[in-house]
Amino acid sequence: MAGGGQRTETASGSSFDLATAVRGGPERWTAEVDPGWTVAGRPNGGYLLALVTRAALEAVGQPHPLAVSGHFLSPAEPGPAALAVRVLRAGRSLSTARVTLAQEGAARLEALVTAGRVDPDVDPGWRRATGPPDLTPVEDCLPGRPELPGGVPARLLSHLDLRLDPATAGWLAGRPGGRLEMRGWVRFADGRAADPLALLQVVDALPPASFELGLASWAPTVELTVYLRGLPAPGWLACVVAGQLWQGGWFDEQAEVWDSAGRLVAQSRQFAGARPAAPAGDAEPTP
Amino acid sequence: MAGGGQRTETASGSSFDLATAVRGGPERWTAEVDPGWTVAGRPNGGYLLALVTRAALEAVGQPHPLAVSGHFLSPAEPGPAALAVRVLRAGRSLSTARVTLAQEGAARLEALVTAGRVDPDVDPGWRRATGPPDLTPVEDCLPGRPELPGGVPARLLSHLDLRLDPATAGWLAGRPGGRLEMRGWVRFADGRAADPLALLQVVDALPPASFELGLASWAPTVELTVYLRGLPAPGWLACVVAGQLWQGGWFDEQAEVWDSAGRLVAQSRQFAGARPAAPAGDAEPTP
Repeated sequence: MAGGGQRTETASGSSFDLATAVRGGPERWTAEVDPGWTVAGRPNGGYLLALVTRAALEAVGQPHPLAVSGHFLSPAEPGPAALAVRVLRAGRSLSTARVTLAQEGAARLEALVTAGRVDPDVDPGWRRATGPPDLTPVEDCLPGRPELPGGVPARLLSHLDLRLDPATAGWLAGRPGGRLEMRGWVRFADGRAADPLALLQVVDALPPASFELGLASWAPTVELTVYLRGLPAPGWLACVVAGQLWQGGWFDEQAEVWDSAGRLVAQSRQFAGARPAAPAGDAEPTP
Repeated sequence: MAGGGQRTETASGSSFDLATAVRGGPERWTAEVDPGWTVAGRPNGGYLLALVTRAALEAVGQPHPLAVSGHFLSPAEPGPAALAVRVLRAGRSLSTARVTLAQEGAARLEALVTAGRVDPDVDPGWRRATGPPDLTPVEDCLPGRPELPGGVPARLLSHLDLRLDPATAGWLAGRPGGRLEMRGWVRFADGRAADPLALLQVVDALPPASFELGLASWAPTVELTVYLRGLPAPGWLACVVAGQLWQGGWFDEQAEVWDSAGRLVAQSRQFAGARPAAPAGDAEPTP
């Protein structure tokens, strides 16, 4: 790690590393929110969380995020962004930083990042009996296309190779499955290997689970927390997303990401807004 | 709500409200971390999260927390604390504040609090088919006592009436069940009604699930996120906690809290450290 200051390493030159590059430091960084990591013109929440986490890792000099919590404050847009980083703890095994991403003087996202080192060789001391999800094989899944039904552009899917499990793809054909559930395979289109930073993007790569409730309106994320549990083995990542309750315009969804070796490598949970296409209420999810 | 400044309302005069009272505002608050809400002399994480959230609610003038994320930075102690609050968003339906709790100049906890109003009359638009947990009836559960095995004081359990499900109480008799799981009933001992603020305490009221893995050493919370989903009906709250993976000294646990009307009122997830009683490694969970 650079450990504060200088330009970020983007060793691989991958599109993800270029789109999450940060410059400056140690407390004031700049970045370009990339127009390519968007759906309907809006930057993806996981992408933004990865961007701010990169600045946090640089500032604290730790290799991996372990627990990241982001609160989304106002809609971000492609273009320049300023990142303010404050180191809250600088420890040997754990460091924590706060990052605020602002555009045109307005805060878009604030995140707390606790970082350390994910041991590549560690084995589970205990794990839940139910292991990796039983997804439909990649070759029988539906490739994500950079355009959603209705002509909505999903440029994110030019960068992420996404394969939706037909079991949760009913919404694509206008027949949502009726459950808060979304499953599929994810990898970077340019072959970049996944690491804990990239998993912050992967946990938010699938379409919102609310689409399977027939809530095709936009689903603004209010809060997104991610735990990074392992270094992924090469290959496809299996992603399963499920929610428990949609009520009063809010729903939760939690994601698990499993690597090709059958190991749980990331867990996330988010709180998001979703309303029917023709809203009856007067309250908006965001002010 | 007071809406910034002045002394906090502690209408009920309950021990929870007294222990989470904050004074000052709108950006600088003071509080007393109460010695009664501790286990082994350490303030409970859910208690601290409720304390900082009370300051956030006062500062933004919203009635209820909706999504709260806290990163625990260093061990808090009973005694005076300073709370710095920064309002990050002030909206009609959603507001967000950051709160930093410090003691003797050192940051102990930083939290992001998104707040709004939980509608008391809303019904689920959709919910997962599996409903309230099938806990052992209250009268057949084990009452929590303010002293853990080994004589460790758990003063928290003078304030919280806790009834542990025998199915996850094997650790009490030296026969841990072997799974990251903990279940039980919770209510305030003095009869205070639960509300979304109090649920921040309730999600962290049960002993760490790691005790059922035989990891009886202290389990320091690194990150704790809570979503508040409803206003609880009067009566006992059913709490179920389950984790997925203990690896490299870290484990996750998620909690659900269900009210006496069978409604999900809170969801939480935490990332915490737990090591065997005689640690072989050299890394400490906290620096």
